Amino acid sequence: MKVVKFGGSSVASASQMKKVASIIHSDAERKVIVVSAPGKRDANDIKTTDLLIDLAEKVIDGSDYNQALSRVVQRFEDIVVGLEMDNDVLEQLKENIINVIESHQIDAWTMDALKACGEDGTALILAEYLKQSGSEAAYVNPKEAGIVVSDEPGKAQVLPESMERLYQLRNRNEILVIPGFFGFSEEGRLVTFSRGGSDITGSIVAAGVEAELYENFTDVDSVYCVNPTIVNQPKNINVLTYKEMRELSYAGFSVFHDEALIPAFKKRIPVCIKNTNNPDAPGTMIVAERPDQQGEVVGIASDDGFLTLFVSKYLMNRELGFGRRLLQILEDEHISFEHAPSGIDDMSVIIRESQMNEHKERKVVARIENELEVDMVSIERNMAMIMLVGEGMNRTIGISGKATKAFNDVDVNIEMINQGSSEVSMMFGIKAGGLDRAVQSLYKAFFAI
Amino acid sequence: MKVVKFGGSSVASASQMKKVASIIHSDAERKVIVVSAPGKRDANDIKTTDLLIDLAEKVIDGSDYNQALSRVVQRFEDIVVGLEMDNDVLEQLKENIINVIESHQIDAWTMDALKACGEDGTALILAEYLKQSGSEAAYVNPKEAGIVVSDEPGKAQVLPESMERLYQLRNRNEILVIPGFFGFSEEGRLVTFSRGGSDITGSIVAAGVEAELYENFTDVDSVYCVNPTIVNQPKNINVLTYKEMRELSYAGFSVFHDEALIPAFKKRIPVCIKNTNNPDAPGTMIVAERPDQQGEVVGIASDDGFLTLFVSKYLMNRELGFGRRLLQILEDEHISFEHAPSGIDDMSVIIRESQMNEHKERKVVARIENELEVDMVSIERNMAMIMLVGEGMNRTIGISGKATKAFNDVDVNIEMINQGSSEVSMMFGIKAGGLDRAVQSLYKAFFAI
Repeated sequence: MKVVKFGGSSVASASQMKKVASIIHSDAERKVIVVSAPGKRDANDIKTTDLLIDLAEKVIDGSDYNQALSRVVQRFEDIVVGLEMDNDVLEQLKENIINVIESHQIDAWTMDALKACGEDGTALILAEYLKQSGSEAAYVNPKEAGIVVSDEPGKAQVLPESMERLYQLRNRNEILVIPGFFGFSEEGRLVTFSRGGSDITGSIVAAGVEAELYENFTDVDSVYCVNPTIVNQPKNINVLTYKEMRELSYAGFSVFHDEALIPAFKKRIPVCIKNTNNPDAPGTMIVAERPDQQGEVVGIASDDGFLTLFVSKYLMNRELGFGRRLLQILEDEHISFEHAPSGIDDMSVIIRESQMNEHKERKVVARIENELEVDMVSIERNMAMIMLVGEGMNRTIGISGKATKAFNDVDVNIEMINQGSSEVSMMFGIKAGGLDRAVQSLYKAFFAI
Repeated sequence: MKVVKFGGSSVASASQMKKVASIIHSDAERKVIVVSAPGKRDANDIKTTDLLIDLAEKVIDGSDYNQALSRVVQRFEDIVVGLEMDNDVLEQLKENIINVIESHQIDAWTMDALKACGEDGTALILAEYLKQSGSEAAYVNPKEAGIVVSDEPGKAQVLPESMERLYQLRNRNEILVIPGFFGFSEEGRLVTFSRGGSDITGSIVAAGVEAELYENFTDVDSVYCVNPTIVNQPKNINVLTYKEMRELSYAGFSVFHDEALIPAFKKRIPVCIKNTNNPDAPGTMIVAERPDQQGEVVGIASDDGFLTLFVSKYLMNRELGFGRRLLQILEDEHISFEHAPSGIDDMSVIIRESQMNEHKERKVVARIENELEVDMVSIERNMAMIMLVGEGMNRTIGISGKATKAFNDVDVNIEMINQGSSEVSMMFGIKAGGLDRAVQSLYKAFFAI
């Protein structure tokens, strides 16, 4: 059994919905479908969820919301008409929205209930369309599916009892279409997840029904092995492990929120990222383990905007608790750090520049000087980080040599190196100015063969 | 003005004392001399300090101490006779010891006072011998010199007021001979430093008188650039910075205790390690800064007996305070760590195996599992660490490439790499089995040209 999630661009229009239906029909294992709300059809379009937020704000304000309502209905009407469906589903969908508006009492509940209408309407339409196309299909409301969540409007957390209830969906024979993005509290109130929450629904449903595969359809063929704004038309990654995906997320690589993946990760369910517009492309598989592990580099993540906090103190390594106290000062100031490579008498802490403004910098430096009695503390900004990613990579003799040579070849000095025993990544810290040419050189060394 | 310290082997016999006198006479700047107690004359000999501890234990026990006393006096008599000196100094020295024994009341005080007789007697003899050789010389007791210490028998700490008092020694014209290893509390009681404490006296006196140079005479020509039990007859190091010396101490490189050097380090006083048996050899200079910094590797330190504590948790890097809490658990268990390289979702902590027995290991692993809710925690023993050391080294493009190639050449896999922005060292973690051949290969790459 496969759980298949379609993102906003995959359900943005009637023509996209036809592709979705065709993808579902092409594989009898695609039994549970999770949908987002219709996204942008072109760069100037507005996402349905944003139209719904606009509508909710007007309802809450008590201002005239008729135009806002029309715009939402129009989005769905375009799809229904394009799919040559009769008007029943549109009427039902409209009625649902008006019911929410008319029962408005508490702002946060109305906001959540209206926002959810995007996914809910899409699921209604898709289920009906699949039926018209001759499939046995059913719309399944998250309440019926058993998605029980905490009562935190706009940031619901899935409660553990959902898993057992979702497992019951395996007993059903039809294709089940579930709207993403929301669940119901124990009191029966509709509550939404944080934005992008359809991925949470997809992952929790995949975990709950113990799917053999969780397919996540979006608008890219696969994950690139390197940032395509630095290297032109880079290679795709076919198979990634969860750990590798996390390491690559350093560079904003992630196609979806990695928090959303936790339920699937915990059940070790493989995930496949595929393209609705090119479903025959193999996509990128994300798996718990790769059996044919070669110990190769699978991707290069890179990002700038880092700073290094450097602290030096004679006999530092004899001082029990020094590192802990340094990190405590950062934690007190709500600064999270990325890495902390160290020598005998010094420690460098790598921090995203966005974490530390000048005010915090002065405070942290003063505290380190006073509380840790160091010999020297300094901060260097404009640093960039490059991560070579690949499970088992560090078992392969020669990879670090090949990497350092790639830096040398383009005259980029390695300021910091950090490689734990995780065997998943090797981090290089450099001055930001050398970032692009270092990444290009590494790509050439590891991929352009 | 130079402060010159002679270690136990340099004052072990009359012939050695003659070398010491000749070294002092050969340079008019050698004005303040600090001496240890006579050490071993050959492999089967017993150090004077151990003879004195044996004597003190018998005195404290109330058992017959006459033979133990005779053995101590015999050591000094051998030297005095060998130097063809008259008996006065020996009588005075003997009287001092007997005075301590006869005034015995409190064990710890007697132990400290008797232990100190080794250095004190040596200083008395050397001062007298220099005078007989025609120099203006004077024995200076640490009380007279102004070495004020905390009242902690066997582990005295130097008090800050000592510095100002020691500075007054600059006003004296004679060659001053000060016994190492002890000072006096504010109540006027003799208290010794921890074992090896003559280095503390040497360093504090050098700092106090603001010496141009602190010479530390021992029995090696200089510091080797690599462990001579791994590489046969390696090159000497001519100049080292304090920081480099500290990094090299990873491998038990240190000729003296590096804590002892703190006073000299704080005043940026250069230190020269020289050989009493070959005083014309240039020795190894330890300086605050090297003006002609080439950014080269100056030494390779290596040691085995490490373990890696590996912790992995999905989304670790989103968790503010994770690293700090991990280090807190280690601190609670009194475990100090060496390095902590990390990935996005994992952290490796490198710890000396001696810091963590099986009982502590079980406790730490259980706490990490329960308190940090990690996905995985594991421990790998039998790790070795290799440090490439050299200030400015990391500014030199190509050093990391050369290093990784040296590992590859002998088929040793690099498990961990840690290079902070300190520009003093680069750490490689490997399995202990590959240690010797990796060090030999690195030596070949960086030194055997």
